[in-house]
Amino acid sequence: MVNEVKSDIEIAQEADMIKIQEFASRLGIKEDELEPYGHYKGKISYSFMDRMKDQPNGHTVLVTAINPTPAGEGKSTVTVGLGQAMNKIGKNTVIALREPSLGPTMGVKGGAAGGGRSQVVPMEDINLHFTGDIHAITTAHNALSALIDNHIHRGNELSIDVRRISWKRVVDLNDRALRNVTVGMGGPLHGMPREDGFDITVASEIMAVLCLASSLSDLKKRLAAIVIGYTADQAPITVHDLEAEGALTVLLKEAIKPNLVQTLENTPALIHGGPFANIAHGCNSVTATNMARKLGDYVITEAGFGADLGAEKFLNIKTRAGGIDPSLVVIVATVRALKMHGGVAKDHLKAENVEALKKGLANLKKHVETIEAYNLPHVVAINKFVHDTDEEIQTLKQWCEDQGINVELADVWAQGGEGGKDLASKVVSEIENSKHSFKPLYTLQEPVKEKINKIARTVYGANGATFSAEAEKQLDFFAENGWTDLPVCMAKTQYSLSDDPGKIGRPEGFTIHIRELRPSLGAGFLVALTGNIMTMPGLPKRPAAMNMDVDDNGKTVGLF
Amino acid sequence: MVNEVKSDIEIAQEADMIKIQEFASRLGIKEDELEPYGHYKGKISYSFMDRMKDQPNGHTVLVTAINPTPAGEGKSTVTVGLGQAMNKIGKNTVIALREPSLGPTMGVKGGAAGGGRSQVVPMEDINLHFTGDIHAITTAHNALSALIDNHIHRGNELSIDVRRISWKRVVDLNDRALRNVTVGMGGPLHGMPREDGFDITVASEIMAVLCLASSLSDLKKRLAAIVIGYTADQAPITVHDLEAEGALTVLLKEAIKPNLVQTLENTPALIHGGPFANIAHGCNSVTATNMARKLGDYVITEAGFGADLGAEKFLNIKTRAGGIDPSLVVIVATVRALKMHGGVAKDHLKAENVEALKKGLANLKKHVETIEAYNLPHVVAINKFVHDTDEEIQTLKQWCEDQGINVELADVWAQGGEGGKDLASKVVSEIENSKHSFKPLYTLQEPVKEKINKIARTVYGANGATFSAEAEKQLDFFAENGWTDLPVCMAKTQYSLSDDPGKIGRPEGFTIHIRELRPSLGAGFLVALTGNIMTMPGLPKRPAAMNMDVDDNGKTVGLF
Repeated sequence: MVNEVKSDIEIAQEADMIKIQEFASRLGIKEDELEPYGHYKGKISYSFMDRMKDQPNGHTVLVTAINPTPAGEGKSTVTVGLGQAMNKIGKNTVIALREPSLGPTMGVKGGAAGGGRSQVVPMEDINLHFTGDIHAITTAHNALSALIDNHIHRGNELSIDVRRISWKRVVDLNDRALRNVTVGMGGPLHGMPREDGFDITVASEIMAVLCLASSLSDLKKRLAAIVIGYTADQAPITVHDLEAEGALTVLLKEAIKPNLVQTLENTPALIHGGPFANIAHGCNSVTATNMARKLGDYVITEAGFGADLGAEKFLNIKTRAGGIDPSLVVIVATVRALKMHGGVAKDHLKAENVEALKKGLANLKKHVETIEAYNLPHVVAINKFVHDTDEEIQTLKQWCEDQGINVELADVWAQGGEGGKDLASKVVSEIENSKHSFKPLYTLQEPVKEKINKIARTVYGANGATFSAEAEKQLDFFAENGWTDLPVCMAKTQYSLSDDPGKIGRPEGFTIHIRELRPSLGAGFLVALTGNIMTMPGLPKRPAAMNMDVDDNGKTVGLF
Repeated sequence: MVNEVKSDIEIAQEADMIKIQEFASRLGIKEDELEPYGHYKGKISYSFMDRMKDQPNGHTVLVTAINPTPAGEGKSTVTVGLGQAMNKIGKNTVIALREPSLGPTMGVKGGAAGGGRSQVVPMEDINLHFTGDIHAITTAHNALSALIDNHIHRGNELSIDVRRISWKRVVDLNDRALRNVTVGMGGPLHGMPREDGFDITVASEIMAVLCLASSLSDLKKRLAAIVIGYTADQAPITVHDLEAEGALTVLLKEAIKPNLVQTLENTPALIHGGPFANIAHGCNSVTATNMARKLGDYVITEAGFGADLGAEKFLNIKTRAGGIDPSLVVIVATVRALKMHGGVAKDHLKAENVEALKKGLANLKKHVETIEAYNLPHVVAINKFVHDTDEEIQTLKQWCEDQGINVELADVWAQGGEGGKDLASKVVSEIENSKHSFKPLYTLQEPVKEKINKIARTVYGANGATFSAEAEKQLDFFAENGWTDLPVCMAKTQYSLSDDPGKIGRPEGFTIHIRELRPSLGAGFLVALTGNIMTMPGLPKRPAAMNMDVDDNGKTVGLF
């Protein structure tokens, strides 16, 4: 049975899509306000955004999850499935998602556009070049790098210290050989030799900037504020010092427009921006979410990794940048992830194990408590996987009910929207009956250490945070520069509530160690690094790329 | 007066463009066969190309030039203007052009989409990300690099010698600091240390491959044949050995479709592919030219640099790959370039100098003779510049007439198609009256040295070619590998007929020295390098990027 199910790409290629102009027109977008990219993708123009700005906002529903397993828990699938289900029960709903990076697509088999009967389409395009946003970011990022090295080569008027350049280069690929490089080799005609490195594009500060910018002028202001390095005297050098914000804005002026596509069931989806959820905030763009709020009475959006990372950043960073007042949080849980949190190894997840499941529930419990700390209503969505047994599903449901936690089974992978109608109804009734008043965890004026301690205690369940000598020094330096009234973006492993990926379940009695802090002044946050955070992935022994092909009609095979 | 004329971008932004679907429909392209990219750009689908394949072909007119000055001679402007003029005199004509690279756009002010009243539009889009073709090539190229380094890191089953990897990385920017780099630094988790370098994307062999591929399956076959390096025993390693051609084709399956846009006067233009004219062949894609031949009774297309480089490669390389039988060659000459060939320095070009002009005519004469060697009719087009004096123009015209050379003044920059009607009429009458039978300069079966000698003698006017010891060794190596029945792609300075950029005019008594040969087996040619060929430009002291900006309505300023 399992081997007979269709692959994601086979389902996606059979989709009955509506032409994008017709699709947009049903949403009230006029022909001139939608810039088509092929027959089924489009960008929403500035003029439409402008025309809609006084419209009322729909409810924002955030989809997050427990700490994920290495294989991912289908959060995007639930987001898409819930969006489809909302429309099935008569609620005008729009989905807002991140756009996938090419690096993982070429590396490890696995889509980033939902799965099964809950996908956004055209999935090949979305997973490949899409509308070119990420390529525009790569280009803008590397153009800035070229301007920096050219400035140094041409006399270095700004006295940039080549040992203190924090702006690395990027490619949207998994390429470990580029993590650490030396550039400017070959003699005086070929630049100044220095150490450098490449990150994957989605880790670029420009990606975070694009996603948090509320307008083209805000984009330019944020780009201007990016710190690219320092002088020997530690004076920060910004993009504005290099007179580069205009050119970078020119390179990004199309990329900032949200992309409209549809799901397999013709539910509208805005897919736009995809920053890392460790050194950045892991959410789709503010422009897309705010556009979705204008287009739909409900918006279903997601944030990367578990509620300790993506949701925390959505609620403390993105809501502030976008003026977003979230209405409810869906917490995706899967039987297999909970079994892992209960101690089962990855290779044994297919076997029924109710005891391990029960043990792993502590992880879910912590995330529910966290969402309550924000004063937000919530529903646990059990994302059904093929190997889950009835007994396991029943145990999970019963536990939630015993704890007074809203819970619904979502079989959206196999059934599409139909499999998410109970979840959708629960989401609607909870929003209608709730008198929530959302509050972020901290104010911007609190000391940075206090912000980090609040996140560590309330979200991670830690005793608190400790700071390395370097981090202490950096905090003093930030204070001198007036960089402290900013939210904090925590870079932490996604696999544990702690900063140790091995500590599964609900660890206790631990502290979070802040190794280093980095200013992302364009994005408008301070990054706090715990443990080793990988910003340039590598490829596996046999990359997914080696299975990809295209037939003579241009049909892709082997992509998921 | 000169200071009051509008800038190219101002003229372009006022263009009265026809919506792309409507525009395509006038050309007989059905709605489903045109993939729109925004309101004024589109890609032509495989299905249309397939549907048209038995249609008769229009006449192909190649626009080339004398050896250019550093500022360029407006060859694209003449190409666009002539296309507009052809339609004005009632000839159904389509233009085929190269797409511009971002590197020069960010570096040196100067458009690559024509100029004045003879531009293709939307010029901002065309000069920025356009439809993403070049980004797709960058990505495919660097994905291959990542696969190579991953292969080595993961055990190096193919025994690739890290000192013999010929496949560099690319960015579509001018970035001299990336010319020579070391990658894989930082210890055993981060790849194998080795020397590497970046070229600008338009110098990528994948760009040449995309431009010479006649179909998707031909594209895949060519990609598979690319040699990326060698083992320690000098055995070549190909993309096929790495099992990467399928993935690269997936990444390029949209980029291979020709892009349709229009000129300021609504003449159709296919803008597609833009390989370097030194280490590659410097022409737009075969798919675009062949599509233009189906759409128009006449096709106006161009090749990079002067007739010694671009036209030679068009006539000996591209015609073979595309099955193209050219009908006529237009040779663009400008008064200022001829004055430079007559010895005037760049700073003194604005002053009238008939004597220098007369002296410089030897350069034009040589190119006319070269085109005659291919047995092709030709017309000299004088591209009028603002500072040309009547006396200078008259001298040039009279000289041509005295020599029995067809000549027409083209004032298309100032007047658009109206200024090119005489040229258009001459082109049409010459084609109608000619009994030409085009012949390439050499057969593929001739020895490589013979091919190079023929180009050197017939096209450059040299006594012949000499070969370095290394080149001799490489020729033996190519012969052992069976790589000799291929056309030769000459990498030579564009400023002189010789391999010395200082030898202007019509040098005589020189030989061409072949320093090195490189196999481009995906592109399907052997590159012969003379002198130092730059494949990664640098930025000037004050890059054009620093003048660019975008206003709050998304309107670009400072771009040309």
